[in-house]
Amino acid sequence: MATGVVNLGEKFALIDERWSPRIAARINDMYLKLVRVKGEFVWHTHTETDEFFYIHRGELTIELKDRGSVDLHAGEFFVVPRDVEHRPIASEDCELVIIEPAGTLNTGDVGGSLTAPEDRWV
Amino acid sequence: MATGVVNLGEKFALIDERWSPRIAARINDMYLKLVRVKGEFVWHTHTETDEFFYIHRGELTIELKDRGSVDLHAGEFFVVPRDVEHRPIASEDCELVIIEPAGTLNTGDVGGSLTAPEDRWV
Repeated sequence: MATGVVNLGEKFALIDERWSPRIAARINDMYLKLVRVKGEFVWHTHTETDEFFYIHRGELTIELKDRGSVDLHAGEFFVVPRDVEHRPIASEDCELVIIEPAGTLNTGDVGGSLTAPEDRWV
Repeated sequence: MATGVVNLGEKFALIDERWSPRIAARINDMYLKLVRVKGEFVWHTHTETDEFFYIHRGELTIELKDRGSVDLHAGEFFVVPRDVEHRPIASEDCELVIIEPAGTLNTGDVGGSLTAPEDRWV
């Protein structure tokens, strides 16, 4: 218990794979996940949950269907409301913290080859 | 919607008061709160929820009843499990990010003069 301190930078250093969220903490029924990304993800929607994005390192654009886009830099966060179709894009390597309920798939309603296992810790 | 980017550093710069959490985001039924602290808080327990602590700036010690203590530095986080009595202590000014369900009081079960309003945004 008293050894459960997590250093974000140290954990991200363990993650090579892109677009593959790794769980770093559980808070009640929510998971805090770390994700390394680069390039364009797929358009998708989470119909059951908001999705929190915090930029640990790098920059991320989140395109929002019919609502423009948001540009996020290190130290900034944004909450994509449930039911809002979105697509993350990172031109360079970017380290994201995501918070969402346990059981949430990275590709939401759309599935496909980028769908990652949901239960891997780092 | 597309203007809801939050910069943690800019938000903390707006907060002078200590031990008085300010809401910066809602994620489903959870609030992400920013708190500026210095000194010793009161021993208390949250019987209904885990409590997530992330250090944005400074250092924090969390004493855990019968379980020792954890020392947290900037960039590190720790989850206090529900029902674990705890006391945060910061020798110098410290900026914390806390995640817990809407309705959670900062003093948990113990109340007292340090109990802050629960619904103030920043």
